[in-house]
Amino acid sequence: MKIHQLLLGLSLSGLFPALAATPALNQDLAFELVASLTTEVGPRIAGSDAERRAADWAVRHFKALGYDKVWTESFDMPGWTRGQASLEVMSPFPQPLVLTSLGGSIGTPAQGITADLVMFDSIEALQQANKAQVEGKIVFINKAMQKDKSGSFYGQVVAARARGAVEAAKLGAKAVVIRSVGTSNNRFAHTGTMKYDPEVQAIPAVAVSVPDALNLARMLEKTDKLTLKLQMNNQLEAAKSQNVIAEITGSEQPDEIVLIGAHLDSWDQGTGALDDGAGVGLVMATGALLKQQQRPKRTVRVVLYGNEEGGLLGARAYAAAHQQELAKHVMAAESDFGAGKIWKLESRFGENAQSFAQQMQQKMAHLGIELGGNETHGGPDVSVLVPAGVPVVGLMQDGTDYFDYHHTPNDTLDKVDPQALKQNLQAWLLMTDTVANSTVDLRK
Amino acid sequence: MKIHQLLLGLSLSGLFPALAATPALNQDLAFELVASLTTEVGPRIAGSDAERRAADWAVRHFKALGYDKVWTESFDMPGWTRGQASLEVMSPFPQPLVLTSLGGSIGTPAQGITADLVMFDSIEALQQANKAQVEGKIVFINKAMQKDKSGSFYGQVVAARARGAVEAAKLGAKAVVIRSVGTSNNRFAHTGTMKYDPEVQAIPAVAVSVPDALNLARMLEKTDKLTLKLQMNNQLEAAKSQNVIAEITGSEQPDEIVLIGAHLDSWDQGTGALDDGAGVGLVMATGALLKQQQRPKRTVRVVLYGNEEGGLLGARAYAAAHQQELAKHVMAAESDFGAGKIWKLESRFGENAQSFAQQMQQKMAHLGIELGGNETHGGPDVSVLVPAGVPVVGLMQDGTDYFDYHHTPNDTLDKVDPQALKQNLQAWLLMTDTVANSTVDLRK
Ligand SMILES: [Zn+2]
Ligand SMILES: [Zn+2]
Ligand SMILES: [Zn+2]
Ligand SMILES: [Zn+2]
Repeated sequence: MKIHQLLLGLSLSGLFPALAATPALNQDLAFELVASLTTEVGPRIAGSDAERRAADWAVRHFKALGYDKVWTESFDMPGWTRGQASLEVMSPFPQPLVLTSLGGSIGTPAQGITADLVMFDSIEALQQANKAQVEGKIVFINKAMQKDKSGSFYGQVVAARARGAVEAAKLGAKAVVIRSVGTSNNRFAHTGTMKYDPEVQAIPAVAVSVPDALNLARMLEKTDKLTLKLQMNNQLEAAKSQNVIAEITGSEQPDEIVLIGAHLDSWDQGTGALDDGAGVGLVMATGALLKQQQRPKRTVRVVLYGNEEGGLLGARAYAAAHQQELAKHVMAAESDFGAGKIWKLESRFGENAQSFAQQMQQKMAHLGIELGGNETHGGPDVSVLVPAGVPVVGLMQDGTDYFDYHHTPNDTLDKVDPQALKQNLQAWLLMTDTVANSTVDLRK
Repeated sequence: MKIHQLLLGLSLSGLFPALAATPALNQDLAFELVASLTTEVGPRIAGSDAERRAADWAVRHFKALGYDKVWTESFDMPGWTRGQASLEVMSPFPQPLVLTSLGGSIGTPAQGITADLVMFDSIEALQQANKAQVEGKIVFINKAMQKDKSGSFYGQVVAARARGAVEAAKLGAKAVVIRSVGTSNNRFAHTGTMKYDPEVQAIPAVAVSVPDALNLARMLEKTDKLTLKLQMNNQLEAAKSQNVIAEITGSEQPDEIVLIGAHLDSWDQGTGALDDGAGVGLVMATGALLKQQQRPKRTVRVVLYGNEEGGLLGARAYAAAHQQELAKHVMAAESDFGAGKIWKLESRFGENAQSFAQQMQQKMAHLGIELGGNETHGGPDVSVLVPAGVPVVGLMQDGTDYFDYHHTPNDTLDKVDPQALKQNLQAWLLMTDTVANSTVDLRK
């Protein structure tokens, strides 16, 4: 019996953990990879030398793991370098605050911006304000984020981060300060990308930690005139990023591609362990261990996207460069929601392929994974392939704590649970193996 | 029946909460005070303008709370101002680390200190090292701290903070980096005071967060030669601090003093909510509410010490200035261990006064407070009065989480549990009332 058959056989019969029965497989490989990446490279913001060192790290490790082909594909991007930043209450309660620049924000003039603060409960409330309330002021958007398993409150709150600067500038604000998009009361500020509108004046945008947001709100209960000073010196200039791609070439249908991905770039405050070192470790380990069992029939292509954080730039570059080949992408999936256990398999398959999603989920039932709906986007980067008709799978992780750490200095290796990562790896192996060793057409 | 008798009567009969039966008393007063201090003043490092603003805040609030006398006593101190600090791994794994200068540390030359790292498990291991291992290097002391209710592991670990620079310099080190003295894996670095020895070369001393300490240890598993660069520009110059003192004058023995204290200074990274805003709120509220019930027979003196953090300088200044009066201090106690519930009453009384400790504890039994030993020091600042024979009480708080927050940016108001603070206030009221309305001699 081949190792690969043994794996599936045991899993199906519920004799878990199947992988433990195959001593050749290193179940800790995903954890070892994220440990190596976060220790040896650390933070790796898109377009930086650090992201290039991460790409070198990935190429080196793909080769050592026995991948058949390894290459990089570079692309242009608008670069952004974080400078120093400070935000202080000047009067009547002088004290420094904990802040972080949002990714992509311009800096301030050297002397800073000193202005009074005006608070809104949400970006919607800001949009309903009038110019007299906002003009010449620093806008503070103080919207709290709730916790849940699927991170479903992120979308509601992140709008203030993405569009707060534009909405505030429309009403004449000098800068925007948002409450961190996060679920922890640790005094960390949450970064993440923001956008400008060419039609609207660009103003600096920062986030304060949750305790600082609470403190500002208390101050505003005590005074009508709260004056703040923001100083920040970020730099924007053109840069390059790259996708790192590696393949285990299929033995029977090498032109049919099962794409599994994660993003290699990270924000610069933490070491990008949860976002997205864990995903990187998982997909790199999946291809390597599959080959170690037995070369799959279809090609397994691992894509480590560059510059996901700046707005899926690596994903768009990949889609453009591989346009001719997308019809041969039989499935795509991405791991980018931390390192919590997988609890649900979602798909976006054709009508007739529904039963295949069910088959996959049944192979994972012993891991505590249920079957979800058929409307997943498959992860941020692979979602870009959905309009081209590429079928996607989402192995949904428990993200209850994800936004405690996400995009803060606290995203470090010690937050990754090696046991939960093992469970993830088993699911990724089962999913990838199932599709790569079948002839199923998931588009149908 | 007077309110004050009602309070004690109900408490003794176990009909708790007694204070809830006296609507005139504001049970939230301690929380309101710490909220006000941390919001309106924020961080207040000893010798700074912020500490002076805190003193002004205290004078203003003591007066508003109806204290009979309020004054400040200033004293000289060696000032220290935190500058910028950075610590980077230069090779082979370049990345920035999260650090904080230890209080009192000198800075580096402008170009920084670049040197290889040598790790020790503890200060004891460093002391056993030889010069060849350490000379010209940056020493890293990587000792973890365990958690418990009484914070008893702090003493074991804090030696590296206090004396690490001296021990490392004795062997020719260029700088010392310690693992944060704390019990959380949040990526915060823990500050706190350190000392130099005039006989030994002064070298810079910093702490890295626990995740960074773990990362450095992992790096050292992968390489023998790990090069770091430390840059830091602190300033040391003479400064002034002050104790703020307020009294509720006794109705019958005004010259007999019951001293209740806390320290007004805080480290600068957080807002000093747990250390020691909570204590400040508690003792300020205790005197005010006692007077509101009925003026006590003995004088209740509230002392808010300046510069506790730099080494009990306010406590020493108080002891010197009030030397003639110490024989009239019938008891002293300090609140300086956060805002956890009180679970034990400890004392340091004369033999014959033991039964009085028991009486006090019985009045608090309904609050879940047991009787501890007779060897307490009463808190850091009042411990200075013990050699002069002043009897002290320790109302011991549950500090299980204290060192998750202590001396980090995370020491903010949202970490103070208003309910636990109410329990504290009730115990402080009962203790202070009992002694201030008795004629007991606790020295006997
Ligand atoms: Zn991500
Ligand atoms: Zn992200
Ligand atoms: Zn303290
Ligand atoms: Zn302290």
